[in-house]
Amino acid sequence: MATLETSSSSTLKLPDALPLDSGQTLENVEIAYETYGEMAADKSNIVLIFHALTMDQYVASPHPITGKPGWWSESVGPGKTIDTDRFHVICANVIGGCMGSTGPSSLDGEGQPYAMRFPVITIRDMVRAQVALLDHLGIGTLHAVIGGSMGGMLALSLAANYPERAARVIGIATTARHSAQNIAFHEVGRQAIMADPNWRKGEYYADGISPDAGLAVARMAAHITYLSEAGLTEKFGRRLQDRKAISFGFDADFQIESYLRHQGISFTSRFDANSYLYITRAMDYFDLAEEHGGRLADAFAGASARFCLISFDTDWLYPTAETRNVVHALNAAAAPVSFVELSAPYGHDSFLLDVPALDSVIKGFLE
Amino acid sequence: MATLETSSSSTLKLPDALPLDSGQTLENVEIAYETYGEMAADKSNIVLIFHALTMDQYVASPHPITGKPGWWSESVGPGKTIDTDRFHVICANVIGGCMGSTGPSSLDGEGQPYAMRFPVITIRDMVRAQVALLDHLGIGTLHAVIGGSMGGMLALSLAANYPERAARVIGIATTARHSAQNIAFHEVGRQAIMADPNWRKGEYYADGISPDAGLAVARMAAHITYLSEAGLTEKFGRRLQDRKAISFGFDADFQIESYLRHQGISFTSRFDANSYLYITRAMDYFDLAEEHGGRLADAFAGASARFCLISFDTDWLYPTAETRNVVHALNAAAAPVSFVELSAPYGHDSFLLDVPALDSVIKGFLE
Repeated sequence: MATLETSSSSTLKLPDALPLDSGQTLENVEIAYETYGEMAADKSNIVLIFHALTMDQYVASPHPITGKPGWWSESVGPGKTIDTDRFHVICANVIGGCMGSTGPSSLDGEGQPYAMRFPVITIRDMVRAQVALLDHLGIGTLHAVIGGSMGGMLALSLAANYPERAARVIGIATTARHSAQNIAFHEVGRQAIMADPNWRKGEYYADGISPDAGLAVARMAAHITYLSEAGLTEKFGRRLQDRKAISFGFDADFQIESYLRHQGISFTSRFDANSYLYITRAMDYFDLAEEHGGRLADAFAGASARFCLISFDTDWLYPTAETRNVVHALNAAAAPVSFVELSAPYGHDSFLLDVPALDSVIKGFLE
Repeated sequence: MATLETSSSSTLKLPDALPLDSGQTLENVEIAYETYGEMAADKSNIVLIFHALTMDQYVASPHPITGKPGWWSESVGPGKTIDTDRFHVICANVIGGCMGSTGPSSLDGEGQPYAMRFPVITIRDMVRAQVALLDHLGIGTLHAVIGGSMGGMLALSLAANYPERAARVIGIATTARHSAQNIAFHEVGRQAIMADPNWRKGEYYADGISPDAGLAVARMAAHITYLSEAGLTEKFGRRLQDRKAISFGFDADFQIESYLRHQGISFTSRFDANSYLYITRAMDYFDLAEEHGGRLADAFAGASARFCLISFDTDWLYPTAETRNVVHALNAAAAPVSFVELSAPYGHDSFLLDVPALDSVIKGFLE
């Protein structure tokens, strides 16, 4: 195995139309993906990483818009937890996204952006597109598939629908279905976007005036759900932002306000509002049990992979109970499963942050 | 004591300018209030109820806009928990509100709506206005003061700043300070309102075109925080709204979406967006310890009342730990305090819903 790190960006145009769960098909689908590390001749060393809602394929390479390091570059790279000296890592932008894979901002057959004429997709549709990518690359069974949050939903969906495609499945801070509360938060975000007059029913690409204010509010609301109450208190508390006393006004007096506003505004520079609508919708529709006749264990009836499920004790977006639900189903399906709830103060975002125990669990499971 | 229920609506114009914590003063302050039951000749039977953020003085009488029963009419009335055959109940709209007390939609000295020229107020300012009302009514010491959520903050503030004015203080589902997470959710709501082009820096009263879309989003986000995850799952789960299958679209497929949209839209018919900004700001500024030198016990140093604090086990907006914090401070100040955490499935909203144990605790404490 080579020790040189290699990172390359590619875009595949799928040769065939992609069938969708809605019954529609999507033509001329493009999948933008990054790879790291060398592929073994027998293709036995491949790790597919699925990204979360607002992430993308730049898992360990600088983001082309923000210039920031890849979102999981702490854990993916030569000698790291997901060791690119050993593994060939693939990460593709989900369809519906806005970083090169076909989504609402892509051009349709007439050369116009799809906008809201893009078909509503599901998590399984996203997986189907990436299985087509694996087919194209001649990859049969992955050494492992890994994903956190929405990426974990894709990992579970792949395990359920394409059981032969992965020997190991790692799901982090995830769930087998979106709860009413999960749907509720997403609906607030969608309504914030759609309430922005610049949204114009999604037709904002021509003049480039996009519904940034609405998207920023959506991001702010979502961001709160990614952090634990205790983490927020520790990080921000009631500390003031660059002032000694409250201003008796509506400026961002508190650090938490300033932080949230920054999160909201900066998000709009790298994310498409319509993509946010479509991807959140796919997540809300996700219910792996319902998709397999109502019983989650049946979703995993054909599973041959080993599973590793990881939750965080302070994650209230996808709390440990949701992971336990998956573990029980895997037990009922007699699938081998490791499950650990890790203690970390950061809430749902723990899966993206420096939690050493997470890295050791993943490293051990990938052996 | 009369057994006839009497309900009357009054508005008091304060004779003096109201000093505010900001250092400003507010002239010509009006306080709109409702009363129920007869006042005893010696004024010994008076219960003051403080309302929550989006509530008002119509605690047990029909709301003049919605026509719905008063927000606590289950518990306030003849023979009820807060028995208006025995007690004279007063509930006043907070200043900053929009149901008759002076707020941003009120006219200033030049006959123009204040809009954002209304001064930023605090919880203590709201209390100060209502103490002026008590002064006007010749009421010295209340039999009890009661409030839930923001109303509980007012009750604690009254106990801290006007300790001689209440013999009993009941705080329900409340806190002595707004946490970073509390501030964060309010900031999302404010940003949603301010992002609405109809907000126009608050100057929307002239043409009556108000920032309803932004206010609805703010209400939706806040509403999620009022309900428990388990309660949402029980009440809505992933049940669909008037359809047998998902629509693969952006309609309100799920009942929770339909419910939230309805909550958002209906709120705009009875609430002023600028009032929402000012009242949430007052709540975010609330930190009873900081107001009294940094130590919460010092806030209650002069307290002579008996206290009753009630929290709910599923309330994640103002969780039991916040109430415990108040109880510990009262203990340190050697104030007599009863504390109970009630089990109820509804989250924060439990204080407004049918929780029989809540009624029996209040009834017992009022004896």
